[in-house]
Amino acid sequence: MLTEQMILRIPGPTPVPPRVQLAMQQPMIGHRDPETSDLLKQVGPGLQQLFGTTQQVSIVAGSGTSGLEAAVINTVAPGEKVIVCVTGAFGERFVSICKSYEIDVVVLEEQWGEAVNADRLKKSLLEHSDVTAVFLTYCETSTGVLNPIEKLSSVVHKYSDALVIVDAVSCLGGVETKLDDWGLDIVVTGSQKALMLPGGLMFVAFSERARAKMEANPRPRFYLDLLKYDKASKEFSTPFTPATSLLFGLQEVVQLLAEETIEGVYDRHRLMREMTRRGLEAMNLNLLATDAVASPTVTAFTVPTVEAKQVRKALKEQFGIRIAAGQGHQKDTVLRIGHMGYCTATDVLTVLTALEIVLMDLGHTFSPGAGTVAAQQVFLKKGTGVHV
Amino acid sequence: MLTEQMILRIPGPTPVPPRVQLAMQQPMIGHRDPETSDLLKQVGPGLQQLFGTTQQVSIVAGSGTSGLEAAVINTVAPGEKVIVCVTGAFGERFVSICKSYEIDVVVLEEQWGEAVNADRLKKSLLEHSDVTAVFLTYCETSTGVLNPIEKLSSVVHKYSDALVIVDAVSCLGGVETKLDDWGLDIVVTGSQKALMLPGGLMFVAFSERARAKMEANPRPRFYLDLLKYDKASKEFSTPFTPATSLLFGLQEVVQLLAEETIEGVYDRHRLMREMTRRGLEAMNLNLLATDAVASPTVTAFTVPTVEAKQVRKALKEQFGIRIAAGQGHQKDTVLRIGHMGYCTATDVLTVLTALEIVLMDLGHTFSPGAGTVAAQQVFLKKGTGVHV
Repeated sequence: MLTEQMILRIPGPTPVPPRVQLAMQQPMIGHRDPETSDLLKQVGPGLQQLFGTTQQVSIVAGSGTSGLEAAVINTVAPGEKVIVCVTGAFGERFVSICKSYEIDVVVLEEQWGEAVNADRLKKSLLEHSDVTAVFLTYCETSTGVLNPIEKLSSVVHKYSDALVIVDAVSCLGGVETKLDDWGLDIVVTGSQKALMLPGGLMFVAFSERARAKMEANPRPRFYLDLLKYDKASKEFSTPFTPATSLLFGLQEVVQLLAEETIEGVYDRHRLMREMTRRGLEAMNLNLLATDAVASPTVTAFTVPTVEAKQVRKALKEQFGIRIAAGQGHQKDTVLRIGHMGYCTATDVLTVLTALEIVLMDLGHTFSPGAGTVAAQQVFLKKGTGVHV
Repeated sequence: MLTEQMILRIPGPTPVPPRVQLAMQQPMIGHRDPETSDLLKQVGPGLQQLFGTTQQVSIVAGSGTSGLEAAVINTVAPGEKVIVCVTGAFGERFVSICKSYEIDVVVLEEQWGEAVNADRLKKSLLEHSDVTAVFLTYCETSTGVLNPIEKLSSVVHKYSDALVIVDAVSCLGGVETKLDDWGLDIVVTGSQKALMLPGGLMFVAFSERARAKMEANPRPRFYLDLLKYDKASKEFSTPFTPATSLLFGLQEVVQLLAEETIEGVYDRHRLMREMTRRGLEAMNLNLLATDAVASPTVTAFTVPTVEAKQVRKALKEQFGIRIAAGQGHQKDTVLRIGHMGYCTATDVLTVLTALEIVLMDLGHTFSPGAGTVAAQQVFLKKGTGVHV
């Protein structure tokens, strides 16, 4: 094999487009110089469109987890009660963070592979009328479930005054997100998923309600104090040294997304989801999530007849294709294909056809070529409203 | 002017070497894949040499300030008393962080441009026998003072059991640092200074004494929990998504420094300091720090006859050279030239000769060419033990 080749189909980091790589080659600039202000000014509207907000989007040097922590510590005071809706590993991360910070956590857990149940959430809100925030995971990276954030947010607002706090790390930029219209109070994402950048940046936007809560919240914080970033953002600056090369890349990402149009980007992600899902099904593989809650950015599945790690190993060794294992208790059973960011129908076909070879070789039974054909059929029906 | 040219002589971010830029172009890799472990394994010894330690050096996605905060919150419990030695803006930042976190702060302040006075520190330690940590700034970026860390650390250990916590952001990689030999308990640095990378990485190493204090410290923390990073480092991993492109660059930086030899790197920085200082003096400019405490990485000075901002403006507009203003109350009076990282004698000569033109043009009086000649003389005496 041409061992140099690395086909990254994990749910982040995702491949970086050549134009973005090139942009990151620019010589350093002073972060207190007009060049940096101009850059921040230029990327602002594109980020606001992705977040669906007229609020500022702050850019922080840190990973997605720093964003989850920022959402927690800025809004929830010690001793307050919150609901964390857990549908997988990243819901659990919210729980861990909250528990680290002396927060009274009501955990509303679903089976991994299922979405948050709106009725259970309603019941929980009625039972715990004193919760000050509800934490939701938009795309649960570990299971490929896209939680119905708009609906869940409306439930929270109908039955409580709690803030709606959303981890959108593994989908923002690939899936419609409407902070303002859906009444979301904080939305957090990272650079290395649908935003097609290397890891190292965290993005966050918040509502006026969240701002008021932050201003009243006595909990100490410094580097992750979101009010500091928000204030600096308004002046097209950052409170601390930014990750400048990633900002250069971001500028190009915003441009790339604008060229495709944001609706085009979301359509492409839905197409990739459908191709992946119909393809895997046709190979007699079991999808972890149902169609109704499947994320356009990542698909989790199990192989009924073969050890998951054998499949990953063969894809890597024979084709240079990296797919991900499951997380937590699903580490040895689940496989995940990332199809977000710099990824097209062609990339999905590549992984599916290679996967067919691997499964045939490992003795898994299905109609040869069925997965590829099913994905091709999805592509052919593109734009007809069927499937996609 | 060729307006595209950007000659960055500010004290960070510093220019990124072409080889490092090229390294950062590598395609993304999975952060839980062996490629990332191999990378972390490979950079480890080089980082340990720079920190002067056999302890692990942890790599965090964040800016230098995230490192200062990490040093504070991991080691100091709420209500504890600390001494912060303030010699400029970054000493003040330690004060701000400590005050944000309900810490009883004894501020030991010096005039900006002076180093921490060991006798005053001793007196303060005797007066406040209950301090649990002393915070020091190795190179105070705002004034170009290199505090005598080895000596100060010995004073702390002689008169107290306090931890010695060092901000080495603007000098580590350009100046000898000996965590183990000097009895330092935490040393923090950033990527965008002498380490020649873009901003976005923070590095930290700590002693066993510091570890014990961290383990006993009940203060909540999550993203900046250094024990998490330390544990992961030992397994050549990171607890959260790393800034992968910067890690690629780091690999090349470690290689570049090894090729020059670490002593060669430190010699070069001392040479640049002496050339800069003798050159500025010969132009009848006033150096903020004395020779005894001058940092090899950044030099601050004032112009007795001309407004500082006029000098910066002319250097930028006529030569594309960026030097920095002062910080805090010295914003309008002080100028700073960064000479660290990807910077050589040639670069120092460039900024000095251009500065001469600018000063002559603005009517500042000095013997024409005197600054350049003084710097040249330093270069000629290199290796003779005189000046350098």
